[in-house]
Amino acid sequence: VTDRVRVELGPRSYEVVVGSGALDELERLFSGRRRVAIVSHAHLGAAKGDVVREPLVRAGVENQLFGMDEGEEAKSLATVERLCRDFARWGLLRSDAVVAFGGGVVGDTAGFAASVYHRGVDVVQVPTTLLAMVDSAIGGKTGVNLPEGKNLVGAFHQPRAVLIDPALLDSLPDRELRCGLGEVVKYALLGDHALTRLLEERSDALLARDPAVLREVVTRCVAAKAAVVAADEQERTGRRASLNLGHTAGHAIEQATGYALAHGEAVAVGLVFATHLASALERIPPGDVDRAERLVHGLGLPVTAPTGLRVEDLLALMARDKKSAGALTFVLPGPNGIERVDDPDRAAVDKAFAAIGVTS
Amino acid sequence: VTDRVRVELGPRSYEVVVGSGALDELERLFSGRRRVAIVSHAHLGAAKGDVVREPLVRAGVENQLFGMDEGEEAKSLATVERLCRDFARWGLLRSDAVVAFGGGVVGDTAGFAASVYHRGVDVVQVPTTLLAMVDSAIGGKTGVNLPEGKNLVGAFHQPRAVLIDPALLDSLPDRELRCGLGEVVKYALLGDHALTRLLEERSDALLARDPAVLREVVTRCVAAKAAVVAADEQERTGRRASLNLGHTAGHAIEQATGYALAHGEAVAVGLVFATHLASALERIPPGDVDRAERLVHGLGLPVTAPTGLRVEDLLALMARDKKSAGALTFVLPGPNGIERVDDPDRAAVDKAFAAIGVTS
Repeated sequence: VTDRVRVELGPRSYEVVVGSGALDELERLFSGRRRVAIVSHAHLGAAKGDVVREPLVRAGVENQLFGMDEGEEAKSLATVERLCRDFARWGLLRSDAVVAFGGGVVGDTAGFAASVYHRGVDVVQVPTTLLAMVDSAIGGKTGVNLPEGKNLVGAFHQPRAVLIDPALLDSLPDRELRCGLGEVVKYALLGDHALTRLLEERSDALLARDPAVLREVVTRCVAAKAAVVAADEQERTGRRASLNLGHTAGHAIEQATGYALAHGEAVAVGLVFATHLASALERIPPGDVDRAERLVHGLGLPVTAPTGLRVEDLLALMARDKKSAGALTFVLPGPNGIERVDDPDRAAVDKAFAAIGVTS
Repeated sequence: VTDRVRVELGPRSYEVVVGSGALDELERLFSGRRRVAIVSHAHLGAAKGDVVREPLVRAGVENQLFGMDEGEEAKSLATVERLCRDFARWGLLRSDAVVAFGGGVVGDTAGFAASVYHRGVDVVQVPTTLLAMVDSAIGGKTGVNLPEGKNLVGAFHQPRAVLIDPALLDSLPDRELRCGLGEVVKYALLGDHALTRLLEERSDALLARDPAVLREVVTRCVAAKAAVVAADEQERTGRRASLNLGHTAGHAIEQATGYALAHGEAVAVGLVFATHLASALERIPPGDVDRAERLVHGLGLPVTAPTGLRVEDLLALMARDKKSAGALTFVLPGPNGIERVDDPDRAAVDKAFAAIGVTS
């Protein structure tokens, strides 16, 4: 069984295929092509690369695996340069293509390499982590880090397809699964009430990686992200900024802990912070805060920040966020849905910080 | 007096302004902006940077000069990384902009840095060499070299405007001026008969850098390039490939001489080669060859290759050209205009090589 979600972007439209047969789509997609470069972590490529190679072989496409390291350190221009040089030495042409097989680091880095090699070759994203499946693999944002900041260099380069087989999550460490669930909760809080109920009622099956529940959860998140991307491909209208729900505080907490708290965990706390802040600003009823906290907690995610963080430090980190030009910007739920709120009342901010265990 | 040529690309349309007041346009373009990063060669920035800075200061825009080295060596991912890091440390935001002030190396490198910094900031091209004015600054092709080949990494990133003051050519070395004229001849041979006559009748004034003649020549070339770019923005339909007239042989000759022959000089020989080949294939009358040779010679450009080059070596270099997937491809004039010709008759190829002094 596979679900299909179309990302409507005119000539750059593509499908996200979710389900146990999703990777078979590679055979149809690349039939008639000459060569495909598969980019992956070395160990992942060795352990599971065949799920990508077999449909390519059936399509009669030459393919080769190009390894890269894991972790944010590998998400660099140095890796992009090495990949492009390796592509060139292998003889990859502009009419050939790249498959990014891995988590967010591989997807962002290989996607960016594909976007600049010969000024752009086709890329298909095959995400292998929950975080990448529900978020980073969809929408065409690619890029790498600089010492000065994350994702400072990149491109909008839409994939030709995103192929998601939730069975690839079988070997994902529990903590990485939970991190993905942080982003899943975000989509629920963005207004998908059916997803909220699903997460409330089936959290045990989800944490046990029940394939049918995973597929439904991933498809719902993909559909939500696809709608936002279709409305605001290049983050120009502000609509795509709604995806930053929970991320203003989340990023700051992630940085303040020296990344001891992982992205998805920090986002979970950031989502709880955002609902507290929205409630303190009387944008949502207090009951919504309780429900969000229970949802986050029920998925094994933290609802408070680690001890020892200070309000002033987090505010300073938020102010340095690359997208802000001075103002302290949040995206918050409210009576009209998710909206951008600039420089909210300081007392409300302090109250929300206190609710997640951060004091002055 | 300024001429204006519009590059029609829908939402990415922009104007190329040619003439003595062209750079004043910076004041209007950037009025209301916060910051502009000017990228240039260190010595050019010091000697002439004020022509860019003054209109920015009048517009009330903060600006800073970011230097880079000259030459193909500097056209690298390392330079792009350094520029992006410098932009980040200076606090350049996504809503800010970049001005590329220099020749083709600066335009390609700074244009690419602008295309990837924050996934794309606005860039205005202010070319200072004839080659950049008539070719590389227009059309949005940006990129850098890898050890494996030239321009292997890059992006299509259309500028917001191209501002050309031919007076900036006053200090250009004679040889660099001649190199630009190699590309100018290409536009004439692409079918601009008025440009051909202008080059035949006013070659002395042109070589003496008469401002009015320079402006007319540059504007004619810009208009020709703008039409091709508008028809085929991302080199997909083959129309933009017509701009490679003279470049198949030209690139090979340039490489075979170890770049002792400069790009524009090699292109000039390549143009002569292409007309000989077209004549040998009976696509054009022999009289067209004589006229092209006289045109090239009259502008002080070579009509034959340096001694010592061999047919087989040049053919091997051509076969390695990144755009070809095996076939030997030329773009040649003919009864229906410029067309792509794959694997032409070998006897005709040898005859054309012999005509430019290259034998087996």
